[in-house]
Formats: sequence, structure tokens, C-alpha cells
Amino acid sequence: MADTRIRLGMVGGGEGAFIGAVHRIAARLDDAYVLVAGALSASPEKAKRSAEAIGLAPERSYPDFRMMARAEAARADRIEAVSIVTPNHMHAAIAEAFLETGVHIICDKPLAATLEEARRLRDKARASGLIFATTYNYSGYPLIRHGRAMVRGGELGTIRIVQVEYPQDWLAAPIETTGQKQAEWRTDPARAGAGGCIGDIGTHAYQLAHFVTGMAPEQILAEVTTFVPGRRLDDNVQILLRYANGARGALWASQVAPGNDNGLRLRVFGEKGGLEWSQEEPNRLLWSPLGEAPRLVRRGTAVMNADGQRINRIPSGHPEGYLEAFATIYTEVAAAIVARRTGAPIDPAVTFPSVEDGFAGVAMVDAALRSNAAGGIWVVPER
Amino acid sequence: MADTRIRLGMVGGGEGAFIGAVHRIAARLDDAYVLVAGALSASPEKAKRSAEAIGLAPERSYPDFRMMARAEAARADRIEAVSIVTPNHMHAAIAEAFLETGVHIICDKPLAATLEEARRLRDKARASGLIFATTYNYSGYPLIRHGRAMVRGGELGTIRIVQVEYPQDWLAAPIETTGQKQAEWRTDPARAGAGGCIGDIGTHAYQLAHFVTGMAPEQILAEVTTFVPGRRLDDNVQILLRYANGARGALWASQVAPGNDNGLRLRVFGEKGGLEWSQEEPNRLLWSPLGEAPRLVRRGTAVMNADGQRINRIPSGHPEGYLEAFATIYTEVAAAIVARRTGAPIDPAVTFPSVEDGFAGVAMVDAALRSNAAGGIWVVPER
Amino acid sequence: MADTRIRLGMVGGGEGAFIGAVHRIAARLDDAYVLVAGALSASPEKAKRSAEAIGLAPERSYPDFRMMARAEAARADRIEAVSIVTPNHMHAAIAEAFLETGVHIICDKPLAATLEEARRLRDKARASGLIFATTYNYSGYPLIRHGRAMVRGGELGTIRIVQVEYPQDWLAAPIETTGQKQAEWRTDPARAGAGGCIGDIGTHAYQLAHFVTGMAPEQILAEVTTFVPGRRLDDNVQILLRYANGARGALWASQVAPGNDNGLRLRVFGEKGGLEWSQEEPNRLLWSPLGEAPRLVRRGTAVMNADGQRINRIPSGHPEGYLEAFATIYTEVAAAIVARRTGAPIDPAVTFPSVEDGFAGVAMVDAALRSNAAGGIWVVPER
Amino acid sequence: MADTRIRLGMVGGGEGAFIGAVHRIAARLDDAYVLVAGALSASPEKAKRSAEAIGLAPERSYPDFRMMARAEAARADRIEAVSIVTPNHMHAAIAEAFLETGVHIICDKPLAATLEEARRLRDKARASGLIFATTYNYSGYPLIRHGRAMVRGGELGTIRIVQVEYPQDWLAAPIETTGQKQAEWRTDPARAGAGGCIGDIGTHAYQLAHFVTGMAPEQILAEVTTFVPGRRLDDNVQILLRYANGARGALWASQVAPGNDNGLRLRVFGEKGGLEWSQEEPNRLLWSPLGEAPRLVRRGTAVMNADGQRINRIPSGHPEGYLEAFATIYTEVAAAIVARRTGAPIDPAVTFPSVEDGFAGVAMVDAALRSNAAGGIWVVPER
Repeated sequence: MADTRIRLGMVGGGEGAFIGAVHRIAARLDDAYVLVAGALSASPEKAKRSAEAIGLAPERSYPDFRMMARAEAARADRIEAVSIVTPNHMHAAIAEAFLETGVHIICDKPLAATLEEARRLRDKARASGLIFATTYNYSGYPLIRHGRAMVRGGELGTIRIVQVEYPQDWLAAPIETTGQKQAEWRTDPARAGAGGCIGDIGTHAYQLAHFVTGMAPEQILAEVTTFVPGRRLDDNVQILLRYANGARGALWASQVAPGNDNGLRLRVFGEKGGLEWSQEEPNRLLWSPLGEAPRLVRRGTAVMNADGQRINRIPSGHPEGYLEAFATIYTEVAAAIVARRTGAPIDPAVTFPSVEDGFAGVAMVDAALRSNAAGGIWVVPER
Repeated sequence: MADTRIRLGMVGGGEGAFIGAVHRIAARLDDAYVLVAGALSASPEKAKRSAEAIGLAPERSYPDFRMMARAEAARADRIEAVSIVTPNHMHAAIAEAFLETGVHIICDKPLAATLEEARRLRDKARASGLIFATTYNYSGYPLIRHGRAMVRGGELGTIRIVQVEYPQDWLAAPIETTGQKQAEWRTDPARAGAGGCIGDIGTHAYQLAHFVTGMAPEQILAEVTTFVPGRRLDDNVQILLRYANGARGALWASQVAPGNDNGLRLRVFGEKGGLEWSQEEPNRLLWSPLGEAPRLVRRGTAVMNADGQRINRIPSGHPEGYLEAFATIYTEVAAAIVARRTGAPIDPAVTFPSVEDGFAGVAMVDAALRSNAAGGIWVVPER
Repeated sequence: MADTRIRLGMVGGGEGAFIGAVHRIAARLDDAYVLVAGALSASPEKAKRSAEAIGLAPERSYPDFRMMARAEAARADRIEAVSIVTPNHMHAAIAEAFLETGVHIICDKPLAATLEEARRLRDKARASGLIFATTYNYSGYPLIRHGRAMVRGGELGTIRIVQVEYPQDWLAAPIETTGQKQAEWRTDPARAGAGGCIGDIGTHAYQLAHFVTGMAPEQILAEVTTFVPGRRLDDNVQILLRYANGARGALWASQVAPGNDNGLRLRVFGEKGGLEWSQEEPNRLLWSPLGEAPRLVRRGTAVMNADGQRINRIPSGHPEGYLEAFATIYTEVAAAIVARRTGAPIDPAVTFPSVEDGFAGVAMVDAALRSNAAGGIWVVPER
Repeated sequence: MADTRIRLGMVGGGEGAFIGAVHRIAARLDDAYVLVAGALSASPEKAKRSAEAIGLAPERSYPDFRMMARAEAARADRIEAVSIVTPNHMHAAIAEAFLETGVHIICDKPLAATLEEARRLRDKARASGLIFATTYNYSGYPLIRHGRAMVRGGELGTIRIVQVEYPQDWLAAPIETTGQKQAEWRTDPARAGAGGCIGDIGTHAYQLAHFVTGMAPEQILAEVTTFVPGRRLDDNVQILLRYANGARGALWASQVAPGNDNGLRLRVFGEKGGLEWSQEEPNRLLWSPLGEAPRLVRRGTAVMNADGQRINRIPSGHPEGYLEAFATIYTEVAAAIVARRTGAPIDPAVTFPSVEDGFAGVAMVDAALRSNAAGGIWVVPER
């Protein structure tokens, strides 16, 4: 029987990378993709070794992404989509190369290292008509979808307050000086871009708040701080947010807050109720209708709404986690790509963060750094 | 046998008041005070009724605080201390009247309705040599003392980040228009002062952060918001904090956040570890030494340090709460008053928020309102 | 004005005791009692010192409970009620002495050290017409009352399963050999009776389950174990429970379970819903209506039913704890005693554990020990 | 490049099945297997449709497991292992058929519907020398491995108490009468065997306690109950456990406890410390060394021991869940199978539940039913 899975390529994600392996599991989990080609490392030797380790055919393991784009374009069984999982500064060039050869893009966040790159890439993606997903993976949790549908359906009334935070502690000491690869590139402006913590995780928090509420702030004000001596990028950021409808928000992201592993947490308060969700316990959502007892909405139960059920895999009480949510992004993108194969319309329920969301994240980093550089003033993010 | 308990008076706290009854239980819990006089209401009839209800001798139930101050001063068995539990705008005048007759003061927070009053009162209190406590009652929890000793003893290293929040939801709807007494005066500028939520609970959050860390911010920037239509004072505030040592902080207080009862929560992060404490679960403190497993420090266990043990009453697992912590403030003040009876030095371990802390809270409100009025700029709190 | 508070005496509770101080605070908290007499220790010298420390008049500090009963009976201002807070083996003799002089009784649990004593005491108490409370203090939590009213009102449907547990860890090592007074008498059959852990805390768990469900087991089967070498009484017990309606239950109590302070926890499941409550977080009750999202019922909120509200003191989010619940037992008893002063009927809402509950606890211990001695068989508790 | 993945077959798991899809994701997640053949349903038409849906080659979709065993045995590219995911009563016959053709077995639990079948299957598996795994999937959580290593390494001292529970609520109403397929076969003695709740989830709880402690009970006593009218198998069970070293245990499993989704929870207490783990929050383990503050051991942090690290996939704070743990069972089995390909020794660190564990579960069900049938007596499980 013909294998109808989507033929996927990958750039980056070789030995020692964390996020590459995550993308591969995510692509595989629902059996919608088959990984057939890659340029897994900028070092040709490492690229080769990495390809062997994951079972890529040698002739489709490329030493370089441009060569890969060209060579794949010439094959009958060429890749239909590519996952870009390199450090941030490479995203734009790689994505552009594949957009030019008609390949759909699944790009890690932040979209690009500079606002200019991000804008150019967004414009090219728009013009191409291709699918472009930015892997803001936290959008893939069923209860996030449930909460989003509640907010958008008016169940909380007009939104007044958004509190989002994302504390970690893994950079509380200067581990980038000890050879830790993840820490090295994330604290290096040449590879990470101008934002450190704010780009790496602040953008996740910002996107999640937007994803759930549908509201983008009109103005922001940021305190961007570097606590660890010698570090070249920020490791803590506090941002105030002003929304068009008068709502107010606060965002805190930190990589120097001991006791926090990956503490992304969103709270949204409207005139009729509140929602609270924490990424580390993603299988429950606290819903507090004003004047009533707060309710524990559990993933997979009958009280989960259609938006949550749509992407739910297993029964309640059987915890789904990070990989499942990440896989959902891939599976949503697959639905869109499969529709494109035949020109069929994409099911409107299919939902994933796009290049526009990717751009908005980079624009937030840009605005926050401008606010901070001016001593802490209110600024307007670029659109 | 002679009753050696401190003779206490009370101003405010009559029928329908919440905090007056709390102060009375707090004074009684450790048996260090006996309530003997009061001017419990501005309405003479209500004052009389209230005095009867709590068993005050009729001749020591006064229709007016000035009369009370004079009459008590003339008695051999006159009150030694007075609890002031009226709406905020009365605090200063009452406290001054009793300071003038040599009575120690236990005053509810915020200290005063305006910065000018607060400053004048602080100066008078300083000059008087009398004991002056401001009932920032959350300072009375054993694990807050434990955490404070840890921070001050350097166990967290240099403090980098302070996140404090105090969400409630009881004012999410305009209940001040329905005759709810507590809501009425707290949203009335004439009685509450210029701060609503920020004065009522923002000051608690601000004081707690200062109490534990020992650090007062050099600059603050505030978003002060009123969400409920028609409300005359703020019901939500977000504040950024800059400390002298480079530390950064954020404070959020809200009375319109559905699902939150009394969610005061403090997180402090230093270079060597973090602390997290929540008022609604006050019998445990999460301590996260960097690189180790977080530890649940439970009130009353052998791992609680001497500062915590000193004010602990009952064994671990037997939850202490709000009234106990409030009582501890009273009992600490009692130790100071008993020392003053004989001119003995006050045990240096005795700790309670003073008129200086009361002033700092009012100065924070003043600074936040200035920041907000100027469109959200950094300002320096008055000292 | 005349002091209308109830005149209270105390037997036991001198220096070094834990529970005596708790009873005194509990009696004082709502200002319904005044402690005027005591026989605080079996050692006359210690009795005297203890009486001075808490401000008893010297002439009403007695070296011996029988002398106290006689002397008080002869006074015009004699005590109306007595708190019995000695080791278990003394309860019955003391209670009988005061019943004979017409004094209401507030007796610590377990009621007596043997079933025979308990039965005799119960019969005398019944015959006396006096108020007799056994301080199963966990009955005093507002949310326990809320849950009890739910169960009794049929909101859970027919009850099917009762799971109650009470783990502690303070006896995990043989601290009774180190001079720890609390451990010494609680592990001494001569003072504690035939039950160790089962009598000390197993009875609490058993009473709480009964209090909430209104169901007493028809049969029980027990594994009663002593883990610490050299210990003379049990330190762990597991009991299965069979109820008349076919419901099934399990009770676990332990004093050797590291990590548990005072982990009393009750779960009740009916055909229409479940309830879960934990004493260490007493301000919330989890209510799970079948097929709906579980709800966090918080003490003091508007969703708390009348039975909970009736004994609630302060607003939600301001945690009440162990002392408050204990005080509620005292305050309920006070309402009954005040009614008796005039012969008025006792408000039917007034609720406190009686001598019958005390007897049921001792009967459970007796049955469990019989079951265990026979190798683990089903037995019927005495009535 | 040659595909070195293990060629896997599946019996059961067609349309409408829950656990089949879970097994397929589990096999795929770490890319160690490729599913190439199946007899997915007893209905040939449904088997065909199901095979198409998951992309099996038509010629390797069989209408019947015996035909599959024979046909596969004849192929050069025959399956190396088979997953058995049918209702319980089919497990033994299927497993035996594949053992006879030299195929490694991955069998769902409980191993068989009767003790006799289980014993015969165990004996055949022993004799075959083939790999035989029983998917007690909860053994696949990293923190369960961490805890197991702690217990076995003596970090808790001699184990005294084991409390394990597994409440669910999905069968609280008679949904088997409404056409719910999962409920139908699980409450049907012909397909599930003599145990309902006890076989379905009681065996999981029993295995987990054994897996972590290494201790198998010498005697058990069970209350086996059916609460839902008309139901033919038990839906609630309470079991007491006696261990050889004097330790005592209790096991509770229920499918009629409202508010519980999949509440498997294990607590183990030794003389030096306690452990607590809950399947619904599997990324943390509470470790309470006696006399110290309890510690939150978080999956993926540096404090996790080698046994936990060995099967850990992603960093701490990125929650892993049910599918990941299930996949770990598959991946462990894969390591054993790969070793067998070449006759290499299996890495001693490789750990998965075997046919012995499967037998022990069935023996527990048998013993519990004997105990219950005799009115609740102590019995010895078969070995």
C-alpha cells in the first residue's frame, strides 16, 4: 500500500541538540509524517553521524541546507515540508531557501533573530501561499484549546486582566561558560539574537496569552535584566501590557528563578470568571465562574468542550504532556498540508501558530528592548 | 491574684465591622490583653449596643474617641494601649489623640488616608517614645519569619527577583452599590483615601515583600486601573519595582480577579535559592536551593528555624491561620509594652510592623498614584 | 456589668502538656468561657506553678481533682463546666467525680482507657442529664459541617465507599525512650489504655467518618501492628469497615509514616458524587458531582451551605485552622450550657460530639483489638 | 540504509479499541518498531478496515490470529514480536500460538482470564526462551524507577507500610448497558475473567507496589464488592496485605468513586523515610526523609538517580505522561529483542514486567476472590 504520510526534511537537530529530537518524536507520534531527508548539522561530519543514528538514507543526508533544498527539489519523492530547528539566527535564511523551492515550513521559535529578518520572512511566506507554522508548541494542549474557546465564546465576559509568567532556573549560574551547548548559543547574541530569556521563553508566554485571549497588546513597557555576571543577554524580563479594550496584563519570564523548571502559567480574568492553567500540570484547568465554586476541568472528561476534544488523544487521568502537545502542532499542520495536496480547503477547525505569530513574537522582543533601552517607557510593538 | 494583662481600648469595630472582631480575638488569643474600654462606633447608639454585646462596662463605652482619650487618661486603671480599627481617614486623628495622653497604639493599615497625615503621625509617634504598631498582620506567620531569617542570613544569596501578588475577587461586581458596608467605605475616597485596592491590599503585599527581604524599592512604576464601571477608586494595580542592589520586582494586587479569595503570595529568588509562600496555605514554605530538590518546610517541624519557632504555637500538621498570625502581632506588641512598664529593654527578637512601615505603605500608594497619573513613569517613593 | 461567661475548671494541662493549652485557647477564642479553677497536675508543686503561669487564683488551684470537685461544689461562684485533659486512664474517674457534683463535662478523647470504664461513664452521663462533650475537635471545621449536611441531605446519593486515613510520623523512631513526655504516656498501656495509635488518632478518623456520613459500621476487621521495636502499644492500624447499607470502608491510621504530620483525610463516595477533605488544608472541600467538573468549595464563600456558615468566623481566603475548629466545639457546648442555665431548649442546630461518640470510639478500639487478636477476623463493635 | 527497527505484529486493537492505539503510539514513539502485520479484529471486515486505516499492507492484515501466526512464520520478513491487545480471555490462546512460532510477546494485562490459563502460559513462556512482556505500563515512569532504586538501595530503611490505591469513576453508573464498548467487555465475565475492577486496575496497583518495593505479599484478605445494580463483576475492592518481613499494606481499587479519573497512587513508608507518587502527576515524587523537610523530586532534574535518568526523555518541567511511560516499556523490550537477534546478553539495566508479573497479577485476583468468597479471610496467593 502506498505510504501517504508527509515526506519531511529537517535542518538542524543533530547530536547534542534537544529540540531536534522533540520535533522528530512530535512528527512521528500520530504517524502523519515520515522523515526522509536532513541537514542535521553545520558540521558535515556531525551531520553524517547524526543522520545514521536516526536512520536517514545516506544520499538524503546533506552537509548544507542550500544543497538540501536544491537536491530535494530535483527528486520525484522530494520532501513536502521541512522542520527548521537550528539556532535562531539561521531560521530566516533556511526558511527562505525552502520557500523558494515550494516546501512547507515548520519553524522553531523565535522566528528570527532580528525584526528585519522576521518581517522579510513573513512577507515571503505570505507571498508564497505555502503553509508556514511556527512551533509555539504550548498552543497544542487540549485544555488551552478549551480555555481559548471559552474566552472567545464570551464565557468569561470582557477580559480585564492577563497574568502570564514563565520562570525557569537553569541559567541561574553561568553554565554557558562550562561548555553546556544549549546555554552557549542561547546566551550568544550572534546566534540567539538580541533577546536572551525574552526571546527564548518570553515569546512563548506572549504567544500563549494572545492565543487564548485573541488580544494583542497595543503598548508594552519592559524591564529587561541580566543578573548573571558576564552574561551577554538578558535572563529576566518583566513586562506590562496595555490592551485596546482597556484590559491590563503583566508578563514575567526568567531563567534565574531557583525552583522553577518550566513554569509557564497563564491566568485570564474577565468580568464573569477566571481561568488558570499551568504547563507543568497541563491536564487540568481551573475555571472560576464569579460567585461560584472554582471547577477543575480535567482533560479528556465529558466537560471538555469540542475545541479541546478535537485534539485529545487518550482518556482523562492518563496524563498527556509536552510531547503530545508538540505532536498536535505537527498533526494540525499535516491536516493543512494534506488539504493542499489536492487543493481541498483546510478544515477551519485546524489551528496552529503561523508565521504571523512568529513575527509578533519578534516584534514583542524588539519593542521590549526599545522600552528598556529608553529607561522603561511605554512603546508600541511593530505590526 | 492581680491581673497583669494589658488594659486595652478600641476605637471602631462596632456592629457590622469585620476587622474589629478580628482584633479582639487576636488580643485575646494568647491572653495578654483585656479589653476594658471602647468608642466602637461614630454613632453613639450603635457604640452603646456594640459595647454591651462584647461585655464592656457601660461607663467605659464612649460615644467619641476624644472623650475616651480624656476620660481614660483620668482613671487609675486607664488603658495602656488602644486598637484603632476605623476606616482609614480617621486613623491619624485618633492615633494622635491617644499619643497625646501617653497610650501605646495598635493601628490598622493603611496608616492614613494621605501622605501628609501619615508623615505627621509618624513624626509624632517618633517623638512620643510610645509603642506604635501597624497591623500588617501577615508578618505574624511563623513561616514568614522563617523565610525572613533565611533571606537575612544569606541562605538565598543576593536577592535578584521579588514577585508578590495579592488577588481577590470580592469587588469584581459593583457590590458597593448594594449596601455592602465593607465595599462601601473601601471604594469611597473620603473614607479610604486616594487608594482603593492599592491601599487596602497592595500595601499588604508591599510590606510583606519588604518584611521578608529587608529591601525597599528605590523606584516604582504603576498601572492603576478601575475596571468596574462607576467605581471611584482603583480595583487593580500592577507595579514594577527597582531595588538598590539591582534586584527587580513586580507587585500585582486586584480585587476583580474571579477565583481568588485572599491570594497573597510571595516569591523571592536569590542567586542561591528561591522561596515561595502563599497566605492561603500558610503552614508550608517551599524552599528551592539551586540545583537541589525543592523542600516543603512545614510550620512546626524541627526544620523550622528559631525565628519561626519563636512564634509557633502548636505542632506541625495542626494548621494555624489568619487569626493566629494576627494574634502574634498583638502578642509581640504586648511583650514590648510589658517591657515599657518597667523600663526594661525590649527583647530584640520581638518583631512587629511599626509606624515606619505604616508610613512606607502610604508613601507607596502616593508614589504609585503619581506614576500612574503621569502616564506610567518611574518615580521615587517618599521617605 | 456582670460577666456572663461560663465558669470553667480544668483537670490536667499543666506544664509540658500540649493539649491543655489548646483547650484553654479554644475556650477563650470566642469569649464564652472564663477559666477560674484547676487541678492542673498530679504533682501538687507542678499544679501550683502551672496555675500561677496561667493566672488562676491560688485558692482555686487544687492539688487533686477530687478536692477540686468538692471545694468547687461548695462555692457560690462554682465552676459550671470542667475540661478533662489528662492521660486517658484518668478520664473516667475525673468525669464521674464532676458529674456527681453537677458539673458539665468537656472530656478529651478517647473517652476512657477500657470499654468497661467507657460504658459505665456513658451510663452515668446519660443518667445525669448534664452536658457531656467529647472533644473530637475535627468535627468543628466549617467544611466538615458543609460536607455532613450534603451527605445527610442526599446530595451524594446512597453512600457506597468511605476511605479515611490519619497518618503521622512523630513516633517513627522510639522517642518514648528519650524522655519525650507526649510519647511516653501515649505508648504506655497503663496511661493510654490498650490502644496506642488506634486510640490516639484512629478514634478521630473513625469519629470523623461517622460524623460526616451518619453511618456506623456493623462489622470491622483490623490489622493492628507495632513497628518500632520495644514499643508496647500499636503504632499502625488498618481497618476494613462494613456498613448496614452495603457500603464498604477502609481506615488507616499510623504514627510511623514519614512525611506525614497530621494527615487526617476523609473521602466519601456516593452514587451521585464524591467528597474529599484533608485536615491539613481544611479551608477547602473537593466536591465531585458525577459527570461534572470537581468543585473546590472554599470555606467562607457564598457556596458554603448553612451548616458551614453557622460556625464560620472570618471571610474566605483568611485561613482558619485547628484552634478555630477546636474553639467551635467549645462554643457549641457553651450554647448548650447557657440554655441549661435557664432550662431553655438547646438550639437543634448546636452540634458537638457527645459521650455517645466517646463510647463509640472506645468500642471501636475494643473491636479492633479483638479482631486482631483472633488473627484478623470480622467482629461486631459493642454498642 | 536497512531498516533495523523491530518488525511488530498486533492482535486486537481495531476500530473502537482504546488500548490498541496506545500500543501503536508506544511502539512508534522511540522509533524502535515498525508495525507490519495484524489481526486487528475478530470480525474480518472490521479487521480489514482497521488495517487500512493504519496503513498495514493488505496481505499482512489477517482475519484471524492463528492464520497470522502461520502465515508470518512462513515469511522471510516475518514479525519478530507481537502485541496482544484483545479482551483478557483471548490473551493466553494468542500468546501460545505465537510462542509456538518463535515470536516474542508483548501482552496486555491481566495476563489471562483464569489462573489455570495464566499458569500454563507462564510455563510455556518460560520453556520457550522468548521475551515475554506484560504491559504493566506504570512501571515505565522515570520517577517510579527512581523510587524503586531508592527502596532497593535501602534509602528508606526496612519497609513497614505500603498504601496503594487506584480509584476511577467511569463505571459509577451502569454504562455497560448503554453500548459503551470498553465498559461492556470489562464487565462481562466471559471476556474479562472472574475479576472486574480488581483485574482491570487492581492488578496494576498490585504490580506497581511490588515493582517499587520488591516485596510480594505472603497473605491477602479482600473485600470484593459490586455496587452498581445488575453489574456482573466487581467494581470496588479493598485488600489488606501481609508481607514476609512484617510489613503491612492496603490496596484499594474502585471504578465507582466519583471525582477520580485514573488515580493510581503509591505510598511506601520505611523506617528512614517515605515516598509518595501519583500517576496523574507523574513528574514529581515526594520523598520524605524522616526528620527532614519533604523533597519534591522532579523528573529530569539533576537529583534524579541513574535508574530514573536512564529512561528519561526530555528536560524537567516538560511533562511526560502516560504515552511516554507506555513507550518506555516497548523500548525496554526492544533492547532485549535486539540483544536476542545476535545472542548478545541483555543489558542488566533493561527492566520490564514479565510473564511472571503477569502471573502474579492473576494469582492476586484468584486469591482475592477466594478470600472474599469465604467471607473475608486471610489466604495465600498461588505462586
